[in-house]
Amino acid sequence: MNHHRKELWFNTPHRRDYLNITPEVEAEVRASGIRNGLCLVNAMHITASVYINDAEDGLLEDYDQWLEKLAPHAPTSQYKHNRTGEDNADAHMKRQIMGREVVVAITDGKLDLGPWEQIFYGEFDGRRKKRVLIKIIGE
Amino acid sequence: MNHHRKELWFNTPHRRDYLNITPEVEAEVRASGIRNGLCLVNAMHITASVYINDAEDGLLEDYDQWLEKLAPHAPTSQYKHNRTGEDNADAHMKRQIMGREVVVAITDGKLDLGPWEQIFYGEFDGRRKKRVLIKIIGE
Amino acid sequence: MNHHRKELWFNTPHRRDYLNITPEVEAEVRASGIRNGLCLVNAMHITASVYINDAEDGLLEDYDQWLEKLAPHAPTSQYKHNRTGEDNADAHMKRQIMGREVVVAITDGKLDLGPWEQIFYGEFDGRRKKRVLIKIIGE
Repeated sequence: MNHHRKELWFNTPHRRDYLNITPEVEAEVRASGIRNGLCLVNAMHITASVYINDAEDGLLEDYDQWLEKLAPHAPTSQYKHNRTGEDNADAHMKRQIMGREVVVAITDGKLDLGPWEQIFYGEFDGRRKKRVLIKIIGE
Repeated sequence: MNHHRKELWFNTPHRRDYLNITPEVEAEVRASGIRNGLCLVNAMHITASVYINDAEDGLLEDYDQWLEKLAPHAPTSQYKHNRTGEDNADAHMKRQIMGREVVVAITDGKLDLGPWEQIFYGEFDGRRKKRVLIKIIGE
Repeated sequence: MNHHRKELWFNTPHRRDYLNITPEVEAEVRASGIRNGLCLVNAMHITASVYINDAEDGLLEDYDQWLEKLAPHAPTSQYKHNRTGEDNADAHMKRQIMGREVVVAITDGKLDLGPWEQIFYGEFDGRRKKRVLIKIIGE
């Protein structure tokens, strides 16, 4: 069994951003030399997500409005977590809806994705340096 | 390390359907000959889910109503994604609540599930051909 | 490829509880002797979650109130599932928001977690014996 590890770093310009990281993950699958296995991609921070969905701009706006409806940022005083001096409690909730991680099959040396599947980094408390972990195991 | 791959195909009769696919996944674990490892089961389409929960008809109805409350289908004009000509933006949201994938342990040649755990395919934009991927690695 | 399996048992005092199980999972990684691989941690019951987020008491209270808003326990008659004699339909929904499982990379013999990542058991229908499964594969 072989394994490969890579961190991706981000510092997004807005509080919330949605970045397609599929090319970066594909590059690591190639670098790993692994032909068949599993590829874990996870946010290393607890106010961000890695998820798989459509690379369509309208949908990204829809997600953003929908998440804000399910877990509003303001008023920040509605969340006990924000008594710690943070204002990001809503980001901890948005991230649970969108998920922490994806596990993608590797088949014949490639990410085994469906036709519209794209891997996204969902940032809900940006404007600071944060990381995603890629860990690949297989043969 | 060994590996095994299988696609399951669906064409469900309604916009939304919930199918218990545990027997199909169990059959692939047997076919793989793998005694210990991990089994990834994921929707290959971005308006469907693979999730684990109860095979109880009342609960499936509850899920359906609850998802429709959290991410209503109509009016379709409320979603920017639907300006592409689709009417399935809500399905992209319902799928994020229910999740894309499950990873199940394989122990002694069987799915290592708790007493009530059943693997479901959740379809939120059906009446078309769609796929689930099963990828098993282990020994 | 090596593998390691462990069940953790819980019987929490309240209907809903949030337990940090990171030390227990770390202990199993050490016991496995595996240096690089993947660690699956999943609830074996369908009214509980394993998720990764912050070990901050205010946030745990926020999660609890937020989940109760998205999927209220009462009135229990609003859910068809509760016609079976159960009163836990809401717990099946809360668990879908928070997720069933996490997959964590193992690197150099340790859980490869970000600075604030902690593994939690989220119980939504407690006061009974329930289990979490840890399955580790790697080398």
